[in-house]
Amino acid sequence: MGKVILDMDTGIDDALAIAYACAIPELELLGVTTTYGMAPVDQSVRNTLLVLELLKCDAPVYRGAEKPLVRSRVYSGTFHGNDGLGDVNRREPKRTAEEMHAVDFIIEQSRKHGSDLTLVTTAPLTNLALAIQKAPDIVGKLGRVVTMGGAVAAPGNVTKFAEANIIIDPHAARVVFSSDLPITLVGLDVTRKTVLRQEAAEKWREKGTESSVFFATFTEYYLQAYKKYHPYLQGCALHDPLAVGVAACPDLVGTVPMHITVDLDEDALGRTVEDIHRESPASPNTQVCMGVDAERFVSDFLSRTDQAFSR
Amino acid sequence: MGKVILDMDTGIDDALAIAYACAIPELELLGVTTTYGMAPVDQSVRNTLLVLELLKCDAPVYRGAEKPLVRSRVYSGTFHGNDGLGDVNRREPKRTAEEMHAVDFIIEQSRKHGSDLTLVTTAPLTNLALAIQKAPDIVGKLGRVVTMGGAVAAPGNVTKFAEANIIIDPHAARVVFSSDLPITLVGLDVTRKTVLRQEAAEKWREKGTESSVFFATFTEYYLQAYKKYHPYLQGCALHDPLAVGVAACPDLVGTVPMHITVDLDEDALGRTVEDIHRESPASPNTQVCMGVDAERFVSDFLSRTDQAFSR
Repeated sequence: MGKVILDMDTGIDDALAIAYACAIPELELLGVTTTYGMAPVDQSVRNTLLVLELLKCDAPVYRGAEKPLVRSRVYSGTFHGNDGLGDVNRREPKRTAEEMHAVDFIIEQSRKHGSDLTLVTTAPLTNLALAIQKAPDIVGKLGRVVTMGGAVAAPGNVTKFAEANIIIDPHAARVVFSSDLPITLVGLDVTRKTVLRQEAAEKWREKGTESSVFFATFTEYYLQAYKKYHPYLQGCALHDPLAVGVAACPDLVGTVPMHITVDLDEDALGRTVEDIHRESPASPNTQVCMGVDAERFVSDFLSRTDQAFSR
Repeated sequence: MGKVILDMDTGIDDALAIAYACAIPELELLGVTTTYGMAPVDQSVRNTLLVLELLKCDAPVYRGAEKPLVRSRVYSGTFHGNDGLGDVNRREPKRTAEEMHAVDFIIEQSRKHGSDLTLVTTAPLTNLALAIQKAPDIVGKLGRVVTMGGAVAAPGNVTKFAEANIIIDPHAARVVFSSDLPITLVGLDVTRKTVLRQEAAEKWREKGTESSVFFATFTEYYLQAYKKYHPYLQGCALHDPLAVGVAACPDLVGTVPMHITVDLDEDALGRTVEDIHRESPASPNTQVCMGVDAERFVSDFLSRTDQAFSR
């Protein structure tokens, strides 16, 4: 049983990732830490609590960073809606977040579980950067970080060079990649190849459980955005669920070891690129996912979420 | 026995690649086609003839393109000297180039040998682009193109985004990557990890044969340039020899199949990047080298060139 913390700016594909994680018996979800990202952190907290409630999962939720380390924050509701879940429901969760700050939960659990713990991040890396800065000892303790972010051989999705989670807080990303944490980078190179089609959301709607209809509604919002901005994909990318998939089943992807750094220059801000200056003396700090068994992953995602929506 | 044509702008590492190719018994060198690049095409012709003469190899040499398809040409002697071979010898070759144009030789041999032929390019892709445009039928005939060029996960060496062979003629590169040619891309991702150290050139000098001293002299020029501009490498990169190595022994590298395109926008001119718009419907057009057994390659390169310099 692998212990995991999910660190999220709970938008639509983060919600799908939570549903997937809850349905994988090999993963023990210790908690969900939240941050700003697609929407303000309070929306991430609300969305996370709501999603867990619908999934009948009582994992604790922790409120985290409100803004990037250096840059100012700009929200865009284009893909996730202004509330992060497609602006399609007004329901409020029954539970509230824990008292403890997300950063302190990450530190506490890293010290407690060490190499048994995997941190899956699907948000800007602000919480993790703050955790490393506050408690540098966790670098040698935390088992693994599986991070959805970056674009190594593929173009970005915010700029030609940068992916959203990295460019929103490139300085935090630089802190994380400059540490000696064992990182698996699940970037657009692979996530853009894992596509959920319209029919999947239709099936959830037809299934008619409270959770399946809830997920269908905001996933349809996401599918519409993809249809408009990325029609060539013929569906929406399962970015964040793939990070959960890789945490549970590393052989879904083919990886290449590299020493990754994050560009902080204006002309390529947030680009994840090999750090050639450290290539010879330094060992690789990142397993970069370059290939994915998309068919197997999507099939597993669909069958497990179907179980999650049946509860 | 694999038949090969080398397509080169014969500078220093191209010369090293010729020496290596001549020393691999599994490769049958049908000829060397030349182009502009590090120096004008007439210098490439002269350098190629001179190198083959020293190596006692009588492969024919063909003069090719003089300039890029669209861009204007700027030469820089920083790494290869103004004559392409470190400006260290005034010797002229005894032989001259063939009458036939390089582009016509590539077309003729592709039609003649089909899938038995591998074209190894270590120069701007102008000759190959012209060959495809003149004789589109060769796309379905030519066995394989192994091209030293590009930088996929690593930064470029001319700009942050682009490698020299690609940015010198990005339009030709776009023509080649838009064709259905089966390409293996040997880019900076791997070539920058194959390093020749100062001691190797010193050994060639001590060996004292005409060819070993000749190669030592201009390789020392190259090593000096690397020491000045890329000191972290602790030697010079064996860019072009690695392409020959991959042609002879594909398992020297680990590859990832991708659909590569070449950016023609000013802000990332010459960037080799995955073409996401073609990703789903189109099959990969390129095997991108992402990992290399550098130790095995450098060791093979040194032992074979030692044989070549003994003749």
